[in-house]
Amino acid sequence: MNILDGKKLSQKIADDLRVEIIDLEIKPKLIIVQIGQNQASEIYLKHKVAFAEKIGVLCKVLKVDQKIKQEGIEQIIKELNKDKNVHGIIIQLPVPDKFNSRKLINCIDPKKDVDGLTDTNLGKILSNEGGILPATPQGIRFLLEEYKIPVEGKNIVVIGRSVLAGKSIALALLNQGATVTICHSKTLDLKKHLETADIIVSAVGKNGIVNDSNIGENQIIIDVGIDMTGDKLVGDVDVANREKILFLSPVPGGVGPMTVASLFHNLYLTYANNVDNH
Amino acid sequence: MNILDGKKLSQKIADDLRVEIIDLEIKPKLIIVQIGQNQASEIYLKHKVAFAEKIGVLCKVLKVDQKIKQEGIEQIIKELNKDKNVHGIIIQLPVPDKFNSRKLINCIDPKKDVDGLTDTNLGKILSNEGGILPATPQGIRFLLEEYKIPVEGKNIVVIGRSVLAGKSIALALLNQGATVTICHSKTLDLKKHLETADIIVSAVGKNGIVNDSNIGENQIIIDVGIDMTGDKLVGDVDVANREKILFLSPVPGGVGPMTVASLFHNLYLTYANNVDNH
Repeated sequence: MNILDGKKLSQKIADDLRVEIIDLEIKPKLIIVQIGQNQASEIYLKHKVAFAEKIGVLCKVLKVDQKIKQEGIEQIIKELNKDKNVHGIIIQLPVPDKFNSRKLINCIDPKKDVDGLTDTNLGKILSNEGGILPATPQGIRFLLEEYKIPVEGKNIVVIGRSVLAGKSIALALLNQGATVTICHSKTLDLKKHLETADIIVSAVGKNGIVNDSNIGENQIIIDVGIDMTGDKLVGDVDVANREKILFLSPVPGGVGPMTVASLFHNLYLTYANNVDNH
Repeated sequence: MNILDGKKLSQKIADDLRVEIIDLEIKPKLIIVQIGQNQASEIYLKHKVAFAEKIGVLCKVLKVDQKIKQEGIEQIIKELNKDKNVHGIIIQLPVPDKFNSRKLINCIDPKKDVDGLTDTNLGKILSNEGGILPATPQGIRFLLEEYKIPVEGKNIVVIGRSVLAGKSIALALLNQGATVTICHSKTLDLKKHLETADIIVSAVGKNGIVNDSNIGENQIIIDVGIDMTGDKLVGDVDVANREKILFLSPVPGGVGPMTVASLFHNLYLTYANNVDNH
């Protein structure tokens, strides 16, 4: 089995971005809006802030008390949209339940939407017209490219149908010419789909959903799941006989670091577009 | 073999809409912007205008000379967006090559986008938040509902990956809980996917792409293709032994009339939303 090493590739992307950014007079600036507290978010935030420091961009976490009203945050986002020194805006997910997260996300100017999650940018994945690709599918594309794994004509099974991961990944790979099947909790016979796939992308968050009994031989498996076994961070893939697998993007060390790198790749894109427009 | 009779259901939807509309003081108004001439478009336009008359809504075809510039049409659309007596705007596709059709479509206010083709409305199919579903997937949903064909957990193979049809249909059915596979011109083994499907939706425009040799037994087949054999309008499905098929939505008389009916269903939705907002 070979590893699709997201940690290594993420470092390489960081090195490339640092070189690009070092010569810029105005540095790209990212604002991450964090509403309330969330333990899982803290870890992701740390990774993002560390990556920003590494490549030399400005990254500010704007902490907002969760007592604020929906309209209050919408107002904050609208101000950030207008601020020409801000090139990227993220709302750290999940937000507390009382907020309408889709409405918040859709307040972000699509040109500053480095997460690629506004309706406008999601629509552009569907119409395949460019736009900002969400960080997870972008990270997977980078990984497959780096290891020279062709996508066109391949049978790809994506497990999961979230907007952030499953659906966006499926459409991004479909746009590259893959035959894509999207499986999820209502799928009756997962094994039937998995065992004949060329590439499996699992984005569920349930350890063991991909296992020895339901995969085939010599497949490329990309683990996008995040789950915990005791204190240990694990993914969706729990395969004992790893020699059956041709390539594995593991958890941790696969898509996770690639997602962070892709976010800053997106920031650099929105920066370049916004600076050109002024 | 049983027929999914789109002509009959379309008539039923027309009757229902007519009853709703007869009591409205202000009638819903649809503007169809037609740039230049196109023979295929003329037929579709006639169907739309006839349906509008049948249900009692206002429908105006705004013919624009194709010598107009992109900016000229964008200006026309912006004026229509502002006109509170207009509840729906369509750009009749295809437009002549010199125009950027996606840019034109994205000028339409998403609240008046009865075709559901703006990035904003496409994004809402992805995020499954409502919005306006394009007429073709909406028509298919109505047909399946009418004939009490469940979608959840079914293996559905969609052939074609256009925005208007293939991708939108796939996502609309995925949102209803189907396991969806999207096949297209780069798919290497179409038969492998088709023969085990519960439902096949073919949206290619190539007669015979679905045929006796690549389908299974007792399937539901929905033909969305438009092709010509000599002077005869045909679909993608060319199956001699029709007894193999459980249900067929044929061409003509299946999804075609349903698409027109769904467009006016969408107009009634945008009308209700816009009138509520004034």
